[in-house]
Amino acid sequence: MRDSYRHKLEGLVADVLTMTHLVHNAVERANWALFEADLDAAQAVISGDDVLDQMYDDLDARSLALLATEQPVAGELRTLVAMIRMCADLARMGDLAAHVAKIARMRYPEHAVPESVRPNMERLGRIAKEMVKMAATALEQRDVFDAELMAEYDDEADALRTQQFEILLSAEWADGVRAAVDVALLGRYLERIADHAVLIGSRVVYIVTGLHPQGAQWTIA
Amino acid sequence: MRDSYRHKLEGLVADVLTMTHLVHNAVERANWALFEADLDAAQAVISGDDVLDQMYDDLDARSLALLATEQPVAGELRTLVAMIRMCADLARMGDLAAHVAKIARMRYPEHAVPESVRPNMERLGRIAKEMVKMAATALEQRDVFDAELMAEYDDEADALRTQQFEILLSAEWADGVRAAVDVALLGRYLERIADHAVLIGSRVVYIVTGLHPQGAQWTIA
Repeated sequence: MRDSYRHKLEGLVADVLTMTHLVHNAVERANWALFEADLDAAQAVISGDDVLDQMYDDLDARSLALLATEQPVAGELRTLVAMIRMCADLARMGDLAAHVAKIARMRYPEHAVPESVRPNMERLGRIAKEMVKMAATALEQRDVFDAELMAEYDDEADALRTQQFEILLSAEWADGVRAAVDVALLGRYLERIADHAVLIGSRVVYIVTGLHPQGAQWTIA
Repeated sequence: MRDSYRHKLEGLVADVLTMTHLVHNAVERANWALFEADLDAAQAVISGDDVLDQMYDDLDARSLALLATEQPVAGELRTLVAMIRMCADLARMGDLAAHVAKIARMRYPEHAVPESVRPNMERLGRIAKEMVKMAATALEQRDVFDAELMAEYDDEADALRTQQFEILLSAEWADGVRAAVDVALLGRYLERIADHAVLIGSRVVYIVTGLHPQGAQWTIA
């Protein structure tokens, strides 16, 4: 019985890790769709979001079933609680990647992001993607060594968003209202993906240490 | 021992309900700050968000402690899991209300929302507020009678956001890029508050029935 339970718990963690890799792919493809104005990539992210939502339903139900039928304590309880939270984070990140892809699709064959803000947004997209990768690595290794680098990325993401607003509210902005609205929302979606990656990092800390990390690097706005 | 546990669980639910009322107040004041360009109200929502974040930390820790030290089953386990999720929703809603208030503060003494889109945004703000109220009532009464009305409100919120984009991307838009970006983000924040209210409603269904509601009225984009 306990062996079967351990087996189920390990299977759950493995599947949450798989979901993390799928979300990483989704963010990577959403970036590609956005910056290459690639309709197929956009469509793939949007339809892939349904798969992620189904994974979420499945993982959430399995986590709750283990919580209800076993009596997990200590590290196993923390792992289960963290899994329940992580799969919700991941589903949300999938939604956000789909939101990015939908803007790319809506503007196709044009580029949603004007040249003047492209280097900034490309960097933000890359940071969001790298942070998802770091979250996956942290979960895989049950290690928190990347927390500082994650915090640096998160600070850079905040700075990039501030810079975006400066660009699109400057007198030089020549791309009109529609592009400005797209940029503001795209920036928001990518920033939120990064925020959820930080949360996943903090949940790995919780699994390993039993503590909810406090301090600036775990605080999201 | 079991009596003390029940007592703690009831105290937890009561405090989550209190937090729901505080979030309702925050959304109401954020609307006021926005539409009356009231700096004091904006400031109150922004500093009140710290209180909500502290409540979240406290309620989350108490929920996890009960989960770890007791061995809740059936309805009590569902209630605890729902509380863990709800206080995260509520903290997020507080953040979003603070985001709304920050835009009001940034534009003070001017109004962030131009006249042409004001009736639309006022209605969206009112819907978000009413949905938080409905979530509180659902939790208070452990009843799901308002699910259909909640769904209708949520559909209306979606329609209002579509209409916002039509207004600010129309040829008649004369309020410039900055106001358009404000409107797009404000619309997003208020829509997300409404989404979290729907989620709280679905968590009450879960407490009462043990089922995660499926179907269009529980699906958020």
